[in-house]
Amino acid sequence: MKSWVEVPQNSDFPIQNIPFGIFKTPTLGARVGVAIGDHVLDLAILHQEGFLEGFNLPERVFFQPFLNDFMALGKDITTAVRVRIAEILEEHNPELRDRADMRAHVLFRQDEVQMQMPVQVMNYTDFYSSEQHARNVGTMFRDPENALLPNWKHLPVGYHGRASSILVSGTPFHRPKGQTKADHTDLPAFGPSRLLDFELEMAFITCRENQLGDSLSTSEVDDYVFGFVLFNDWSARDLQKWEYVPLGPFLAKSFASHISPWVVTLEALDAFRMAGPEQSPEVLPYLKDEGQAHFDVHLEVGLQPKNQQETIISQSNFKHMYWNYRQQLAHQSVNGCNLKVGDMYASGTISGPEPSSYGSMLELSWRGTQPIKLMGGEERKFVQDHDTIIMRGYAEKEGVRIGFGEVMAQVLPAKQ
Amino acid sequence: MKSWVEVPQNSDFPIQNIPFGIFKTPTLGARVGVAIGDHVLDLAILHQEGFLEGFNLPERVFFQPFLNDFMALGKDITTAVRVRIAEILEEHNPELRDRADMRAHVLFRQDEVQMQMPVQVMNYTDFYSSEQHARNVGTMFRDPENALLPNWKHLPVGYHGRASSILVSGTPFHRPKGQTKADHTDLPAFGPSRLLDFELEMAFITCRENQLGDSLSTSEVDDYVFGFVLFNDWSARDLQKWEYVPLGPFLAKSFASHISPWVVTLEALDAFRMAGPEQSPEVLPYLKDEGQAHFDVHLEVGLQPKNQQETIISQSNFKHMYWNYRQQLAHQSVNGCNLKVGDMYASGTISGPEPSSYGSMLELSWRGTQPIKLMGGEERKFVQDHDTIIMRGYAEKEGVRIGFGEVMAQVLPAKQ
Repeated sequence: MKSWVEVPQNSDFPIQNIPFGIFKTPTLGARVGVAIGDHVLDLAILHQEGFLEGFNLPERVFFQPFLNDFMALGKDITTAVRVRIAEILEEHNPELRDRADMRAHVLFRQDEVQMQMPVQVMNYTDFYSSEQHARNVGTMFRDPENALLPNWKHLPVGYHGRASSILVSGTPFHRPKGQTKADHTDLPAFGPSRLLDFELEMAFITCRENQLGDSLSTSEVDDYVFGFVLFNDWSARDLQKWEYVPLGPFLAKSFASHISPWVVTLEALDAFRMAGPEQSPEVLPYLKDEGQAHFDVHLEVGLQPKNQQETIISQSNFKHMYWNYRQQLAHQSVNGCNLKVGDMYASGTISGPEPSSYGSMLELSWRGTQPIKLMGGEERKFVQDHDTIIMRGYAEKEGVRIGFGEVMAQVLPAKQ
Repeated sequence: MKSWVEVPQNSDFPIQNIPFGIFKTPTLGARVGVAIGDHVLDLAILHQEGFLEGFNLPERVFFQPFLNDFMALGKDITTAVRVRIAEILEEHNPELRDRADMRAHVLFRQDEVQMQMPVQVMNYTDFYSSEQHARNVGTMFRDPENALLPNWKHLPVGYHGRASSILVSGTPFHRPKGQTKADHTDLPAFGPSRLLDFELEMAFITCRENQLGDSLSTSEVDDYVFGFVLFNDWSARDLQKWEYVPLGPFLAKSFASHISPWVVTLEALDAFRMAGPEQSPEVLPYLKDEGQAHFDVHLEVGLQPKNQQETIISQSNFKHMYWNYRQQLAHQSVNGCNLKVGDMYASGTISGPEPSSYGSMLELSWRGTQPIKLMGGEERKFVQDHDTIIMRGYAEKEGVRIGFGEVMAQVLPAKQ
């Protein structure tokens, strides 16, 4: 299937993708759009002009600053709307293709629009579900012989994070300040973090509530998941080391996280499902999952110093997870915790088996002992001021590429 | 100052209090009200009828299911509105007092209305700021000689919690299920938590945003704090023990927390300010606070088995904190983390120096080794199915009592 909208080779957004996002233009307020090739299709106007009849859509559902209201309509409707959009964009369909006046109203070039946060994040959980990452961290900070803690293979370890500071790609932020304590001193010091790091993650967004007290089975999860984004879980390693006992990471994470602006639907990813690793020891019944719930998504991380070229410093894959999204959400709700429309659940750092596929500077530079060489000749142990970190991801099979675009952000110096 | 509305002796809600909440009736939708004696004053109708002119209030600001829009008007306005409400209720003011028809429209008995969640909780942090509680837990689970971890006196330890499952007083909930592991076994088991506990806490609610990257000083915090509620941070101790390393409590906390429905303003508590304990070692400059930021609020916890009388099992006081709310919010934002209108920040378990003032069953029964005797003859190590936990709090000075009402909730058996 092809679209009458031109889709350049290697575009992340062919007609098979149709990811949802929020955009605005210099003259138009925030609204829902989908990406097609290098363009954005304005669903607010498309609906106003009668192209999306038959779904009983609320009149203003696309004139919104977040996708939450649209997602809350439920998968039956949102999936049908996505199918209808593909129909409108299909190369042989003249409905919109042959109406130049209308096309000029509803199709924007992506470089003309400004992407916004796609969802209002209601609750945010960060998991810790890549075995290689957990082993790397455990080896560095605890005991190489017992790198995984006893609970790790029995449950998808996770913690609640800060929703307010999740930002859309492109939003610069300041290096965080905070308390750190050197091993050789008794007292902590205050100042800008010196060990700023990224974490390569993906995150899914929920589109349905459950009742407090009810638990989801792994087989029910797909009805609750709208789609995925790329996620950069910025981490201040020196703040984290001092603050995190006994209640977990706090200010080391809450200063900023970034996501890619286009939410790629679970349906668009269906063709890229695969089995995960065999889980041994056997998991408890509520965590068992019969289907294929891992995804073959190629991931890469680039580091670009100011006014220099970008170096790809990591190439990983979303398939390198131990726990999958169905297990994560079943676990999240097994105690009766209620889900909301707009919750975000991040995977945890996605590190593959090879050192070149590790998903953080901490691991890539092995705690700063093996500096990373950049194309321009500089080295990095951690992220420096004015560096930009760019993460990209796509799945590809039989000539069809379903991509996530990118999540990028530049680090500004700490505020005075 | 007195009100023409009758205020019974020992009422939590004299004219000096005027706490804000959300209520509905069998025939009226959710709206903003204030408590006065045994009554609720309907601000939505009061405003509609012209009693709150001069503040430039949006027309529908009190016809809302949450206080967030009202709080977001800012302290200058919300404080002036509260002063105006006290003026209307003052015993010598005939404006409303002498209009029986109007009174019938705007005054409801509290037992006629149903209280709702007062705020939409945007972000939720739980601190760990009572030294006695941290010492008790450290003594039980780690080392009595080194009960406090090295960071504890240098920063107000806290973690992000789950916002979706914060419930208003009176909402029953089910005992959570989850993974636990006994010391003598290798494998975890799945089932209802057997060590369900409460935690006696208070929480403050923010009413103002700051920009991402900006930090609040302790002297700025009061402009960001709307008021306080009682907070019951339910905890499943057996789930917590197995899951919490290395990233902190997760499902052990996220199944339910309860708050009292009336938000007592910071201004109402001004008369009860006091100095906190001397902090030694000296804290870093960003945590220094010149003013009196502790509050003398008497707290108690009752346990009521089904169809039996209530036993008061703890009497504590909010003054038994090491870190105060100004230090907590300055710490939360020192890394540039942005605050939202409607964030909730809980104190952590408030345990006083005496065993009778401990703020959790874990401490009161000393990990189950010293069962608590109840009036009806039963004993408790932890909370049982059908038990109701009730927390109450009030400040009192020179004949004026500013109370919080209560937060109560009954535990239902785990769902099948």
